[in-house]
Amino acid sequence: MDTIAIARGLDGVVVDETKVCFADKQTDRLYYRGYAIEDLAEEAGYEEVAYLLVNGDLPTRAQLEEYRQRIAGLRALPAPLAAVLDQLPAESDPMDVLRTACSVLGSLEPETQEHGLAAVGQRVMACLPTALLYWYHRHHGGKAAATGSTEPDVAGSLLALLRGASPDALCRRAIEVSLIVYAEHDFNASTFAARVAASTLSDAYSSFVAAISTLKGPLHGSANSAVLRFITKFKSAEEAEAAVLDMLAKKARIPGFGQRAYSKSDPRNAINRPWAKKLCDQAGTPALYEVAVRIEDVLMRERKMFANLDYYTAIIYEKCGLPVELFPPMFFLARLPGLIAHVGEQRGNNRLIHPSSSYTGLQPRRFLRLDER
Amino acid sequence: MDTIAIARGLDGVVVDETKVCFADKQTDRLYYRGYAIEDLAEEAGYEEVAYLLVNGDLPTRAQLEEYRQRIAGLRALPAPLAAVLDQLPAESDPMDVLRTACSVLGSLEPETQEHGLAAVGQRVMACLPTALLYWYHRHHGGKAAATGSTEPDVAGSLLALLRGASPDALCRRAIEVSLIVYAEHDFNASTFAARVAASTLSDAYSSFVAAISTLKGPLHGSANSAVLRFITKFKSAEEAEAAVLDMLAKKARIPGFGQRAYSKSDPRNAINRPWAKKLCDQAGTPALYEVAVRIEDVLMRERKMFANLDYYTAIIYEKCGLPVELFPPMFFLARLPGLIAHVGEQRGNNRLIHPSSSYTGLQPRRFLRLDER
Repeated sequence: MDTIAIARGLDGVVVDETKVCFADKQTDRLYYRGYAIEDLAEEAGYEEVAYLLVNGDLPTRAQLEEYRQRIAGLRALPAPLAAVLDQLPAESDPMDVLRTACSVLGSLEPETQEHGLAAVGQRVMACLPTALLYWYHRHHGGKAAATGSTEPDVAGSLLALLRGASPDALCRRAIEVSLIVYAEHDFNASTFAARVAASTLSDAYSSFVAAISTLKGPLHGSANSAVLRFITKFKSAEEAEAAVLDMLAKKARIPGFGQRAYSKSDPRNAINRPWAKKLCDQAGTPALYEVAVRIEDVLMRERKMFANLDYYTAIIYEKCGLPVELFPPMFFLARLPGLIAHVGEQRGNNRLIHPSSSYTGLQPRRFLRLDER
Repeated sequence: MDTIAIARGLDGVVVDETKVCFADKQTDRLYYRGYAIEDLAEEAGYEEVAYLLVNGDLPTRAQLEEYRQRIAGLRALPAPLAAVLDQLPAESDPMDVLRTACSVLGSLEPETQEHGLAAVGQRVMACLPTALLYWYHRHHGGKAAATGSTEPDVAGSLLALLRGASPDALCRRAIEVSLIVYAEHDFNASTFAARVAASTLSDAYSSFVAAISTLKGPLHGSANSAVLRFITKFKSAEEAEAAVLDMLAKKARIPGFGQRAYSKSDPRNAINRPWAKKLCDQAGTPALYEVAVRIEDVLMRERKMFANLDYYTAIIYEKCGLPVELFPPMFFLARLPGLIAHVGEQRGNNRLIHPSSSYTGLQPRRFLRLDER
C-alpha cells in the first residue's frame, strides 16, 4: 500500500472559509467580524458582541435595545424542562446538565421554519443559564428560580441567578468582558463539532448539544477549572515557582498554557490579566494574582509557553463567586453567539463533512463459525 | 493573500488510521475487522458482530453467551430516566428523545474508571431501545415497558418492545441482519462527530450524544425514512418510473442513492434486497418491492447511480412493523457497536481534532461607538 498523508487532529487542514472571526497567527491578534477583540472588550457589551457575531455587524442603539430585551424576555424555564432538571442528581457534571437541558428544549420548542436559527439561538442564550442555575441551587440551598432574573443583560443575569442578588459593577463588567472574549474562536473542536452536526442539516439544538458534548473534555472546555485547582494549591509565588520548575523537569502539563491559533501570545490573555488583578486587589487576595503571574513568567522564561484565555479567567470567575464546577458551563454559555454564527455560516454554503481514514487493520479473513473458534 | 487549498467537507482527507472497518472503494466491498459483511450477514448474530467490532475478534461461544446475557440484563430504565421521558411531548422527534435519553443516562450513571467505555457501551446498547419505545408507547397506546423485554437478543427485544409480543422468525432475522449491516461504517459524519468529542477526552455518553445530534440530519440518518415516504407514493413500477424520469429531468434528488465510500455499488444493498423481497412476498405486497426495484433500475440506467444501505432498509423496516419515524433511531441504535469501537480507538491514540479555516471576512475595521452608528 502506498504511504498516505494522514492529517491527524486536522492540524493545519483548512476545512472551510469563514467570515466570523480571524485569529491571526502572524500578529497574534483576534478579530470578530473585523473588530479587534481589544476594542470589543473595552467598548462593547456582551449583547452587542453577540449581535455582531450572529448578524455580521454592530447593532444600532434601537437594534441593540430590542435584541437585549428579547433575550431578557426568554429566560423562564418551560415547566417540563424544570421537571427534567429535578430528576438530575446533585453529583451530575454540570456540563451533562447543560447537555440535557439543551436537548430537552429541542424537544419542547423544536426548530422550525418559523422558529428558526435566530430565534432558537436567542432562546438558548436566555434559557440555558436559568436551567443551569435552577439545577445548581436545588442542590446547594440557593433559590432555584425557574423564571430567571430581572437583570437587564446576560452578564448581570448570570451573576444574579448565581448569587440571588444584583451584582456589583466591577464583577458585572468583569464577567461581561469574560463573556466577550469567550464568545467566539474560529474552528475549535466544539465549534467544529457543531458544524459537523449542521452539515447533515440537523437542527440547531443538535449542533449546540454536539458542541457541549465536545467542549466538556479536559483538553477543551474544562481547562479553566483545571487552572483554578492548580494555582490555588500554592500559598506564595516562590512556592509556585519551585513546584512548576519541578513539574517542567518531569515534563508534566501545566493547565492554561498554549493555543495552536497563536505564535507568541494569546491576545485574550492581556485583556484578562488586569481584570484578575483588579478583582484580587478588591478582594484583598493579592497573593493569588502574584502566584498566577509568577507561573506565567516561569513558563515563558523556561519554555516560551504563553498563557491562554483560560488562565486568568480562572481567577476572574473565582473572585466573582462562581463555583469551580460551573467554569466549563460558563465557557459554553459565553460561546453560544459564536456557535449560532457558525451554524448559520455552515448552512449558508453547506457540504456534508465526512472525512476518510487509512485502514491499518487485519486483511480480509475467512469467517469462523462458532464451533470453529 | 495566497490561495489556500480548502478541503470542504473533508472529502478524501485522511483524518486518522483505523482498524475497525474497511470500505474498499476499489472493489466495492466492506469488511468489519477483516470479515466480509456478506459473511457476517449470512452467518453471525448481531451480538456476535457487536462483540467483534468492540473487541476486535469474534467471541467464543462462552464469551458470546456472557456478552449477550450481560446486555439482556441491562435493559431496565432507571426511574429518573423514565420520569424524564414522561416529560417529552408526543410530537417530539424520536431522535431528540434518544439524544435526551442518552444524555440523562450520562448524568445518572456517569462514565468512571470502574464504569468505563465497555460497560457504558453495553448499558447504552441495552437501555436506549427501552427508553425510545417506552416514550413511543406512552403516546401511541402501547405498553410502555420501563423494564425492557425478556427476549434473548437485541433484535428480538427491539421487535418485542415495539409490538408487545415475540416476533416471528423471518422479521427477527431480517431486523438482525439490518442491525448488522448498519453497525459500522468508517468515518461517516456521526462517527466522526463522536471522535471529535472523544478527542477532547470527553466521556463516552457525550460522544454518543454528538453522534445522535449529527445522525439526525436529513443528509445522514433520516435517509431511510425519506426512502419509505418516497417509494410508497407509487402504486406501480410504471408510475414510479415515469415520476422518477421526470424528477431526474428536473435534477431533483431521489432518496437512498449514492455513497462516497463506494464506486459502483454499495455492498450492503445486495444483502438487503433479498430480505426486502422475502418480506414483501410474505406480506402479500409484491408491488412495493417491484416499485423499489424499478426505481433502482432507472437510476442505474439513467444516471449510473446505485442504491445505498438506506434504500431497501426502508422496506424491511416497514414490513417488520416499524413506524417510519423510528427508522432513524433504529439506524443509530444499530450503529452503537461501531461508535464504541471508534471512541476506544480515538482514545487509544488520541490527538485533539481542531482544524483550521480560511478567513474571507472583513478586514480589520475601527470600532464605532453606539452614537457613531
